[in-house]
Amino acid sequence: MSVAMFEPEPSKASKGKMIGVGTGPGDPELLTLKAVRTIENADVVAFFCKKGSTGNGRGIVENFIRPGTLEMPLVYPVTVESDKNGDDYRGAIANFFDQCASDIAVHLDAGRNVAVLSEGDPLFYGSYMHLHLRLAPSYPAEVVAGITAMSGCWSMTGLPLVQGDDILSVLPGTLAEETLTERLSGTDGAVIMKVGRNLPKIRRALERAGKLQSALYVERGTMENGHAMSLVEHDGSPAPYFSLVLVPGWKDRPSGGDAA
Amino acid sequence: MSVAMFEPEPSKASKGKMIGVGTGPGDPELLTLKAVRTIENADVVAFFCKKGSTGNGRGIVENFIRPGTLEMPLVYPVTVESDKNGDDYRGAIANFFDQCASDIAVHLDAGRNVAVLSEGDPLFYGSYMHLHLRLAPSYPAEVVAGITAMSGCWSMTGLPLVQGDDILSVLPGTLAEETLTERLSGTDGAVIMKVGRNLPKIRRALERAGKLQSALYVERGTMENGHAMSLVEHDGSPAPYFSLVLVPGWKDRPSGGDAA
Ligand SMILES: C[S@@+](CC[C@H](N)C(=O)[O-])C[C@H]1O[C@@H](n2cnc3c(N)ncnc32)[C@H](O)[C@@H]1O
Ligand SMILES: C[S@@+](CC[C@H](N)C(=O)[O-])C[C@H]1O[C@@H](n2cnc3c(N)ncnc32)[C@H](O)[C@@H]1O
Repeated sequence: MSVAMFEPEPSKASKGKMIGVGTGPGDPELLTLKAVRTIENADVVAFFCKKGSTGNGRGIVENFIRPGTLEMPLVYPVTVESDKNGDDYRGAIANFFDQCASDIAVHLDAGRNVAVLSEGDPLFYGSYMHLHLRLAPSYPAEVVAGITAMSGCWSMTGLPLVQGDDILSVLPGTLAEETLTERLSGTDGAVIMKVGRNLPKIRRALERAGKLQSALYVERGTMENGHAMSLVEHDGSPAPYFSLVLVPGWKDRPSGGDAA
Repeated sequence: MSVAMFEPEPSKASKGKMIGVGTGPGDPELLTLKAVRTIENADVVAFFCKKGSTGNGRGIVENFIRPGTLEMPLVYPVTVESDKNGDDYRGAIANFFDQCASDIAVHLDAGRNVAVLSEGDPLFYGSYMHLHLRLAPSYPAEVVAGITAMSGCWSMTGLPLVQGDDILSVLPGTLAEETLTERLSGTDGAVIMKVGRNLPKIRRALERAGKLQSALYVERGTMENGHAMSLVEHDGSPAPYFSLVLVPGWKDRPSGGDAA
């Protein structure tokens, strides 16, 4: 396994570089200095988005794109009607990432540096990972870490998450209810990502694991109109895409169970 | 549970604010814009350190502390000889955090804003959490998220960590070998923190869980002289404090097992 990503082979040297840039959870002030510098210096800024929208990552970095920079929207194929576990969906998505990779390669071959925006941290459940796998073997590639959605959310709410010997489990809300229940029972702290319409299932799993009382629901963390509430107080209506659930560990902390 | 940390009660209003500031994993360019602004505007900058050292967090933000800012080292009591699970150690550490909290409270009562530096992200296994628990109930407090050590490390090595339905487990290397083995067997991706002299035990646990081959060892990630290697290639000598182990998930990723 090669981990020396910083000294590309000679054959890569005259090519442009692809840089996966973490844009953080939403607040533009949570961009790193390195992310800002990378975006300001990029020849091309690429970003994932849905048809008819400019994408959330693009919005976060808005003020740092120099006039004249080439912008490259990577528009997800329409997938609303399709079954995410079906072969059709998988095939369509794989083709989409292949196409994005070859479009970006055209710029890299021409010696242009391409910054690919990635919400939160690029290598943590991010779409950028699909491009990295396809292009990093042949082109210089670098990743600029970003503040993850979970860090943004627990910081916004002032919730101490894990300390000392605590185990933290990060669980996609897409998992089966049984799996979620089991995992939540056997961990100290937990973060549940990809909430959306999985919220009722997540709530049941937390209740069965005896952890509903301490769970916090965070919507649009660090963004405008972002807010948090105790999950027991949530009315159960479908959650938006930008939402997650936090379960604090550190059971023996001095102040007892109250977080804020 | 109150999560409205942003609008302090009237009684808090004339007091200074405590701000836990994540300094990221080491590279000063991984500071957020918000961290830089907070440090530049603070009346007091507090930081944990060992006797005879100025501390790693202080070093990272060096260039952003305005001349004339009051600096407040919080010097850990000498603990080298003591048993970390013993009552003496626990008592000494609890007293230490009590003392730090009351020293900081003096500034807050005088209306001075205090930025408390925290390596990585403040609420993720950070010492800052002990101050937050003690002071946030009585004073305005805010947390500025930081890039975690794990994000810095996987970004530096270009290792795609978790994707899709993957579960990520964050495990302190201080756990028992049995526990580590079991947890590593039952997860997709994993991060093992607090490596140091736990490295031989961690290695055995990874081997028993069948995950040694894919594990990456990262030392001083994003810092000067930081480096990474396949854990199987590590000679087994004791690891420094700033080291962790990454185990990638996403087993069905297109390119197979090769990360970089
Ligand atoms: C595909 S994952 C991307 C995660 C991202 N790369 C990161 O580092 O956090 C998308 C999920 O992240 C969570 N998320 C992202 N931004 C968020 C925000 N501002 N507030 C709450 N949850 C957020 C949601 O659970 C969403 O389903
Ligand atoms: C007390 S924890 C603090 C974690 C920190 N708050 C964070 O957000 O990552 C300290 C552990 O973080 C890890 N660590 C911190 N900085 C690191 C770095 N630059 N490279 C590798 N590991 C690091 C080590 O495993 C160390 O034992």
